Amino acid sequence: MSPATEEEFVQLRLDHHRGVRTGVAEAVYAPGKTPGQCAEAVHGLLHGPGTGPVILTRADREQAEATLSRNPGGMSVQTGPDTAVLTWRTSPARAERVPVLTAGTADLPTARECEAVLSAYGVRPDLVCDVGVAGLHRILAEADRLRDADLVLVAAGMEGALASVVAGMTDAPVIAIPTSPGYGASLEGVTALLAMHASCSPGITVVGIDNGFGAACAAVRILNLGARTRGTTETITGSGT
Amino acid sequence: MSPATEEEFVQLRLDHHRGVRTGVAEAVYAPGKTPGQCAEAVHGLLHGPGTGPVILTRADREQAEATLSRNPGGMSVQTGPDTAVLTWRTSPARAERVPVLTAGTADLPTARECEAVLSAYGVRPDLVCDVGVAGLHRILAEADRLRDADLVLVAAGMEGALASVVAGMTDAPVIAIPTSPGYGASLEGVTALLAMHASCSPGITVVGIDNGFGAACAAVRILNLGARTRGTTETITGSGT
Amino acid sequence: MSPATEEEFVQLRLDHHRGVRTGVAEAVYAPGKTPGQCAEAVHGLLHGPGTGPVILTRADREQAEATLSRNPGGMSVQTGPDTAVLTWRTSPARAERVPVLTAGTADLPTARECEAVLSAYGVRPDLVCDVGVAGLHRILAEADRLRDADLVLVAAGMEGALASVVAGMTDAPVIAIPTSPGYGASLEGVTALLAMHASCSPGITVVGIDNGFGAACAAVRILNLGARTRGTTETITGSGT
Amino acid sequence: MSPATEEEFVQLRLDHHRGVRTGVAEAVYAPGKTPGQCAEAVHGLLHGPGTGPVILTRADREQAEATLSRNPGGMSVQTGPDTAVLTWRTSPARAERVPVLTAGTADLPTARECEAVLSAYGVRPDLVCDVGVAGLHRILAEADRLRDADLVLVAAGMEGALASVVAGMTDAPVIAIPTSPGYGASLEGVTALLAMHASCSPGITVVGIDNGFGAACAAVRILNLGARTRGTTETITGSGT
Amino acid sequence: MSPATEEEFVQLRLDHHRGVRTGVAEAVYAPGKTPGQCAEAVHGLLHGPGTGPVILTRADREQAEATLSRNPGGMSVQTGPDTAVLTWRTSPARAERVPVLTAGTADLPTARECEAVLSAYGVRPDLVCDVGVAGLHRILAEADRLRDADLVLVAAGMEGALASVVAGMTDAPVIAIPTSPGYGASLEGVTALLAMHASCSPGITVVGIDNGFGAACAAVRILNLGARTRGTTETITGSGT
Amino acid sequence: MSPATEEEFVQLRLDHHRGVRTGVAEAVYAPGKTPGQCAEAVHGLLHGPGTGPVILTRADREQAEATLSRNPGGMSVQTGPDTAVLTWRTSPARAERVPVLTAGTADLPTARECEAVLSAYGVRPDLVCDVGVAGLHRILAEADRLRDADLVLVAAGMEGALASVVAGMTDAPVIAIPTSPGYGASLEGVTALLAMHASCSPGITVVGIDNGFGAACAAVRILNLGARTRGTTETITGSGT
Amino acid sequence: MSPATEEEFVQLRLDHHRGVRTGVAEAVYAPGKTPGQCAEAVHGLLHGPGTGPVILTRADREQAEATLSRNPGGMSVQTGPDTAVLTWRTSPARAERVPVLTAGTADLPTARECEAVLSAYGVRPDLVCDVGVAGLHRILAEADRLRDADLVLVAAGMEGALASVVAGMTDAPVIAIPTSPGYGASLEGVTALLAMHASCSPGITVVGIDNGFGAACAAVRILNLGARTRGTTETITGSGT
Amino acid sequence: MSPATEEEFVQLRLDHHRGVRTGVAEAVYAPGKTPGQCAEAVHGLLHGPGTGPVILTRADREQAEATLSRNPGGMSVQTGPDTAVLTWRTSPARAERVPVLTAGTADLPTARECEAVLSAYGVRPDLVCDVGVAGLHRILAEADRLRDADLVLVAAGMEGALASVVAGMTDAPVIAIPTSPGYGASLEGVTALLAMHASCSPGITVVGIDNGFGAACAAVRILNLGARTRGTTETITGSGT
Repeated sequence: MSPATEEEFVQLRLDHHRGVRTGVAEAVYAPGKTPGQCAEAVHGLLHGPGTGPVILTRADREQAEATLSRNPGGMSVQTGPDTAVLTWRTSPARAERVPVLTAGTADLPTARECEAVLSAYGVRPDLVCDVGVAGLHRILAEADRLRDADLVLVAAGMEGALASVVAGMTDAPVIAIPTSPGYGASLEGVTALLAMHASCSPGITVVGIDNGFGAACAAVRILNLGARTRGTTETITGSGT
Repeated sequence: MSPATEEEFVQLRLDHHRGVRTGVAEAVYAPGKTPGQCAEAVHGLLHGPGTGPVILTRADREQAEATLSRNPGGMSVQTGPDTAVLTWRTSPARAERVPVLTAGTADLPTARECEAVLSAYGVRPDLVCDVGVAGLHRILAEADRLRDADLVLVAAGMEGALASVVAGMTDAPVIAIPTSPGYGASLEGVTALLAMHASCSPGITVVGIDNGFGAACAAVRILNLGARTRGTTETITGSGT
Repeated sequence: MSPATEEEFVQLRLDHHRGVRTGVAEAVYAPGKTPGQCAEAVHGLLHGPGTGPVILTRADREQAEATLSRNPGGMSVQTGPDTAVLTWRTSPARAERVPVLTAGTADLPTARECEAVLSAYGVRPDLVCDVGVAGLHRILAEADRLRDADLVLVAAGMEGALASVVAGMTDAPVIAIPTSPGYGASLEGVTALLAMHASCSPGITVVGIDNGFGAACAAVRILNLGARTRGTTETITGSGT
Repeated sequence: MSPATEEEFVQLRLDHHRGVRTGVAEAVYAPGKTPGQCAEAVHGLLHGPGTGPVILTRADREQAEATLSRNPGGMSVQTGPDTAVLTWRTSPARAERVPVLTAGTADLPTARECEAVLSAYGVRPDLVCDVGVAGLHRILAEADRLRDADLVLVAAGMEGALASVVAGMTDAPVIAIPTSPGYGASLEGVTALLAMHASCSPGITVVGIDNGFGAACAAVRILNLGARTRGTTETITGSGT
Repeated sequence: MSPATEEEFVQLRLDHHRGVRTGVAEAVYAPGKTPGQCAEAVHGLLHGPGTGPVILTRADREQAEATLSRNPGGMSVQTGPDTAVLTWRTSPARAERVPVLTAGTADLPTARECEAVLSAYGVRPDLVCDVGVAGLHRILAEADRLRDADLVLVAAGMEGALASVVAGMTDAPVIAIPTSPGYGASLEGVTALLAMHASCSPGITVVGIDNGFGAACAAVRILNLGARTRGTTETITGSGT
Repeated sequence: MSPATEEEFVQLRLDHHRGVRTGVAEAVYAPGKTPGQCAEAVHGLLHGPGTGPVILTRADREQAEATLSRNPGGMSVQTGPDTAVLTWRTSPARAERVPVLTAGTADLPTARECEAVLSAYGVRPDLVCDVGVAGLHRILAEADRLRDADLVLVAAGMEGALASVVAGMTDAPVIAIPTSPGYGASLEGVTALLAMHASCSPGITVVGIDNGFGAACAAVRILNLGARTRGTTETITGSGT
Repeated sequence: MSPATEEEFVQLRLDHHRGVRTGVAEAVYAPGKTPGQCAEAVHGLLHGPGTGPVILTRADREQAEATLSRNPGGMSVQTGPDTAVLTWRTSPARAERVPVLTAGTADLPTARECEAVLSAYGVRPDLVCDVGVAGLHRILAEADRLRDADLVLVAAGMEGALASVVAGMTDAPVIAIPTSPGYGASLEGVTALLAMHASCSPGITVVGIDNGFGAACAAVRILNLGARTRGTTETITGSGT
Repeated sequence: MSPATEEEFVQLRLDHHRGVRTGVAEAVYAPGKTPGQCAEAVHGLLHGPGTGPVILTRADREQAEATLSRNPGGMSVQTGPDTAVLTWRTSPARAERVPVLTAGTADLPTARECEAVLSAYGVRPDLVCDVGVAGLHRILAEADRLRDADLVLVAAGMEGALASVVAGMTDAPVIAIPTSPGYGASLEGVTALLAMHASCSPGITVVGIDNGFGAACAAVRILNLGARTRGTTETITGSGT
């Protein structure tokens, strides 16, 4: 066996048809990859048979620059001090009302990631920040928005109580995203994840800790169902061609 | 303070309007309640202002008999050797295609609970049993059903791998239900819950361990969205009147 | 060493002056003791130098009967199907407003234990049941009561979100009691305990899982502070003589 | 969606009335915020409708300087080598006796944070350091102080035994603060947290790991109760105007 | 392979020389064995080449009776309501001062097991019960006994603080035994085990949860060292011949 | 005792005969050792009585350079951005078919480590990357390779489902290697480890997290068995002389 | 949906070709199934297209009797006081030397289960009991057997040290089976599982807790490799026809 | 409250009589303290009423230099690449035979810490390195040394099996020290700690993870017992005057 070269690491087995199969195209998760790997992986997806959005998540500055330079035309959304989501070939805008709520400032990077991925699929979420349950009037002020929503995403860390409260205020699907910021008993998001699963409000579903990307993908699946049942044959991923 | 009597325990604060607010009426969770408490709680819900389905979950034989005797007209679905779900005031049948998959026999009680609650809301799921990934041809044989589904529910314990595989075969929303049967490293469902959250297939959402009821409620919220976006004004819970 | 006899087990080293030292007399925890041990332990406390309340917690039917038979004049409060708290030498009634809230029916045994112990010290709590956050109007309807409270106790299991919400609605001290009922991700109360400690509402303090007794003792310490700062020299335990 | 700018992150939804509602004004938690965010958040609280203390916790040198420069008149208290608590609009001095105990040197940052927040509310705690139970004469020497205390706070890591011992020596409320320093079996404070909850001394309440801020808030709630029951209408937060 | 018979299960590979090698003879742990297996295992040890004590631990009534009937001359010590330690061929009495302390009544079965095993080796421990730290005067009253002790064993559950306090009051070796009784945050002894390992008092060693037998064996090893350094050639196990 | 010098740390007790005893020579684990210690340990093994391969695992650049400079003739295989496996005295090539599968790119360093160690023993594995179950066609495309394999190694993180699927597609031994990359609910490989142990596919065995070296050693033991049962007397380690 | 009947539960989706695909036929896991379900599942496997062994694991007395009565000709092996493994259509005897070691008596049920499943495939293991490392001479006495073994299985609970010692004494593949008996810090087998994965002896692979069945399946896969590499075309499962 | 100055942090409450009370003088734990705090704490102990050894543990280079400069005459022992133990006023040499064993190189820093602290008390341990159970001949070669030992300390990480093996080879007291090096399933020493507590060898006691200091203190207590029982009145700490 000859020694491994860096190029060798780039030979990823891309899954070009995933968009057709699952309604969600393969995204590239940047952490642990070199800038060059990120750039090549995105390039491969953009020039393969797929036609839907292409997404690079959790890219640092160096990864973002290398990938944008190799693949012009991408849109970059800052999700944290040194993190961005990049998207190419985004879908046309859609009309669903999808509030993305955060309990506190620390949940913003996760909510931003979720928002950026949804935007790539044409969904234009309403970011509603800092409505944690310690000051209940804040979420009560959003009661109409929740009642009229098609789907609600809730990013909350610490005790994650916001998801339970929201699920009691709307009949829309509620996707809860536990977040890791917090300290001590927050256990890096495990407390919020457990609390959301133990919620007394029935009908909440939960994604992984800090997984704004996964929450957005689940939302796209659900909104696709709504679009399909409207009698239109096109699906979200098809609309991107 | 005078000593507590058993009657006193029954004075539950029922939440009659939950159906209107959340699309899911309050259900009564039987474990830990006396047969009398179960019977009275259901009675209160049936004779309050609500109009949607009323559900008693995880009732043992004695609880089921007492509650049915006090509240005639209920339907009982056996979910395990000594457990049943009882439903009253069920909704008319709906047309969505909703497969409920199990990886193995041990997941059947949870899938049954999910199926019974969905049925109360008029959804008629297809129960597809024993399609665990150890014999991959079994789930591959269901590929068409998965492709055409409006929503898929997956009940799986042990390593919970079925959810990942299914999410790669459909663009429908996928709700994963970790189940507790198994031994040793299954950690009573915690392994499956973690594995489903760590899934490499994007867009899965997860409910609590063995929570067939919660999964059904989440499904109703999602299918309601589909119904609403079809342009019909009636929602599931409204159709029960 | 001669073999142990049952009598030998009863020779407990009672702590008669604890009431004077800590404002809370030694209570006897029934589980794991024989009916005879319970009866003798209470007898020893009643006939020692102490003058405050004497309490037997979590007694089953047999333990309760044996102890009441040996020590007449006790008051028994049923806290669950087969569990009771027994109290002797209770203090005169006091005037503080102390709501004890429960999120759901399953929290009632813990709330009952808390209520019974408080009653032994003359505190007459208001038991406010089933105000969990899934139906937010229920706790909102108690806003005045919370605003006027001297101290609030919150018993909640599952995700324990009620404590966070309550702490945002009152400036009174809030003692949170995580409870163990629930299933799956509730982890027998650990989820609620963690969530209460990770609460986004500052100023909550927490006691152990299902520890209605400990919560009541903490409440007595706090209310004693209020009584002392009023300029009265008597303390709660002193008032029992 | 246009890309996020740093300014956008600052648009926090401040909760100006929290002081009136809960007796504790909203504090700003510095970690994870930029210096600019810290400065703006404090500025917003100082120029809103609230009148009580404003607090910035766990600020590093850069955050502290930026916030003090934007908001002159703040007082800075060093709580660790590179951490400070900043307070503005502090309340007039009060007379309660509130010892803050530490088991060892490593608990000092947490005790300092607690002390600084109490001081903002006019409480002047007595910091009593290094009275861990390994040398029992040290805490025994404080017996009078504990007996006369209105409230006791105990910061202890490792096995957290000091809280149990203290609670047996006073009838005042005892708030235990588990701290994270230590190694191996200390599990970053989890051992102390569990031990404090499992304490054999009844009537201890516990706050989160290293949560000196939360302990101080709980103390303010309790001391407010004492002040209110003295017949004075003013509360702590009111006294700051 | 022919089907297994019960007799086959009895063919244990006894370790007759363990007493010579380790100073502690092989004991038989009863749980999970049939009465017949217990009886035969003890019989094998008594009639093999070993000469030291033979011990059966945690025997229920049926196991104890079968084993005593097969092996007359044993001494039975009740360690709990339905548990006993049985010993044969006990060593002559020794003179060391070895207090065995318990924090509360619930630690008694573990302390009893420890006491019974020590007695088999000729050590006559002083059982000192109910000296938990919640009432500090109780352990302070034993200060002389601790100062003069050759070795101290401390059985404590819940927060396990007694071990830390005791280790600060004596220069003798201290063996801490975490016990499992308790509820909620006690985590079946894990909290006490962690707390004892995180103790601020240096020089404590710890054995497994409820392991009174193991603690006694460790004590015998240590006391043997003392005996050997006195210049006497006989060791404890040798004195049994 | 004189102060320790760095040289003193190098005096490792090498185990030269391990290759003869276990079929696997002692390898040197680089992390935590100085470059000098790595170099000397390898030198000692190369100049001792052993004749099989000598391996240095997880060496960083500095460790690798120092060890190669002291011990010329080694082969270096890059396993990650800054990690390499170095091997000396590798065995002649063998003929078994041993696919090493990865679920995703993040599993590559572990698979590389496994591959490098196998190569040192003459085994030439086929590295098959990115065949995770989210796109099932990828592993289905490898069905023939799996059917014809002599042994299969599967490196997978996150939910680890690939091992279950593979074990259902081949009758060869399957060794599963959980990997730590991933975030949130992956729990640094613990989720994958638990999932692999809870697999519904019988006959999987598992090695430690990220333990590509251990998996390769287990593979060598198994392939040695195959070689031995073929009637050839030479074993792998013997063939290195 | 009509109520479920017991018959409905029996409609298992049997996987008749698993034997051909994986070398191990589908076994039926009895716990959680009714006696009738066990009997029908075995019947289905025996009368389907498969030709290899059919196995029922962990059957209690009632399950065993019902299944044997419905399917005559099975062999029953008692693995514990009330547990048996039943096998039908066992393979002809093979010649490999496969010691199955136990550390103590409590590991016997797991070792028995492993032995019974191996026997169904024609492997005749040597059961070597009670060779735990506390008396090292016991395992040293088996040195020749270990050196000559084709494969070694080690069932050990508590600290699981036997696997590490054995792996250092043989070059055969070693499969470690952690067992759950033990108390306190054994954590029901988790401690042994972790210890085996953290072993300092390279080349151990591990199966799930108490999973004697899984260990036997892994052994069959490995021994099949040996058989195949001998140049014989028949595999174990094929030899059953 | 005036802002804290660094000097204020130094005012530690030293425990000068601890040596007399416990046989072990107070040591200073360096991590988390400034160089100045370390220097002053040691100075305070050296010039107080105590007469025994004074110890600074886990000092980095800067802490060590500052403390030695302020307190000349100390001895520094390097325990790791950047860690040292410093000792002043060490006791005269003693004669006990105390092997300190390590399983592997990674356990050396902990063993060194233990050795340095023992040396301060005059004990001259024999450091026996790299005798892990993977190569059993290494520990068997030390059989005589173990048989003749007065006390044995075992530092082992990963699966910690060495302690079980050693305890079966000697009748001396055995103190096990779990160490944190290792990766994956080692869980930073928790696996070794649990395994040592679950050991099948009776009579092992365990100290905290990496706690070489605590192990040495426990050893001193035990050796003091031996010294005392020899009829000499002096104890170790007394011999330092």
